[in-house]
Amino acid sequence: MRVLGVDPGLTRCGVGVVEGVAGRPLTMLGVGVVRTPVDAELGQRLVAVEQGIEAWLDEHRPEFVAVERVFSQHNVRTVMGTAQASAVAMLCAARRGIPVALHTPSEVKAAVTGSGRADKAQVGAMVTRLLRLDAPPKPADAADALALAICHIWRAPAQNRLQQAVALHAAKAPITSKGRTA
Amino acid sequence: MRVLGVDPGLTRCGVGVVEGVAGRPLTMLGVGVVRTPVDAELGQRLVAVEQGIEAWLDEHRPEFVAVERVFSQHNVRTVMGTAQASAVAMLCAARRGIPVALHTPSEVKAAVTGSGRADKAQVGAMVTRLLRLDAPPKPADAADALALAICHIWRAPAQNRLQQAVALHAAKAPITSKGRTA
Repeated sequence: MRVLGVDPGLTRCGVGVVEGVAGRPLTMLGVGVVRTPVDAELGQRLVAVEQGIEAWLDEHRPEFVAVERVFSQHNVRTVMGTAQASAVAMLCAARRGIPVALHTPSEVKAAVTGSGRADKAQVGAMVTRLLRLDAPPKPADAADALALAICHIWRAPAQNRLQQAVALHAAKAPITSKGRTA
Repeated sequence: MRVLGVDPGLTRCGVGVVEGVAGRPLTMLGVGVVRTPVDAELGQRLVAVEQGIEAWLDEHRPEFVAVERVFSQHNVRTVMGTAQASAVAMLCAARRGIPVALHTPSEVKAAVTGSGRADKAQVGAMVTRLLRLDAPPKPADAADALALAICHIWRAPAQNRLQQAVALHAAKAPITSKGRTA
């Protein structure tokens, strides 16, 4: 199973590709960050995120995309950017018929460290160990993206097969929408 | 000046196209709602919003897209959907080099009714009068989209010319992003 994990953000959007199955050693296929300039127009930043995600999908052809679930109780400004970047990531995946899974930060932390309250350093250390890397991926967004992918591989393999079937079906029969023109 | 107004939402995304200049009678070119089913996967809903917005851009070729600015102090669930739908609308416009403007709900109400605290009925009544329609557009999301377009036409024509130049420049020289692959 090949999963692209996405830690959404407008300034830094972490991306990481992991291959493997639950119970076997995992392999990292790629890790990076899609960056957009803080001073660019919002629309242009979203286009840049789209181009970045598309490039990762083209290169690695993941079967699943795992995106961090965004909550709105945090900082208002940050949350809006995160929600917008995550929308672009979900859109890119759904357009290709790739099933999208959302995992909360505490689900991800619990999956890779055993504790939903683990800190960044602990997540980075476990990602390094689980993927047999020389050093923790930097910045933290990149490590978080890999942790999301690992979390997805380890959670509910049966559910993944169902999601994949549903997403393929939905991609073949797109939802239509109507409008009225004067 | 031709403007597509977008009142973003996942369940109902209002869209309306208005043509005209400040100080002259305005013309409605189209109004409608892009709908997506509540029970569909989030990714599929975003794809449906994208297809809907793209169809409106193809048909009406607006010079500007005006989107309602989303705030996060409201209902958490609704705000996330609204932020995601608005991201898709901004992405579609920016990809084509169409400048995107964000207007707050109170700016829009103040522009069309004279009061930033006007209710839905008052906005609907003024949109009907300003565009010389037979009846207020239904649902309210459709009327709000037209109000957004009117608001944009009436606010800062000089600023619009600047925005247009910047957006065209940005579309010609897209932002690049980097990543590392194992």
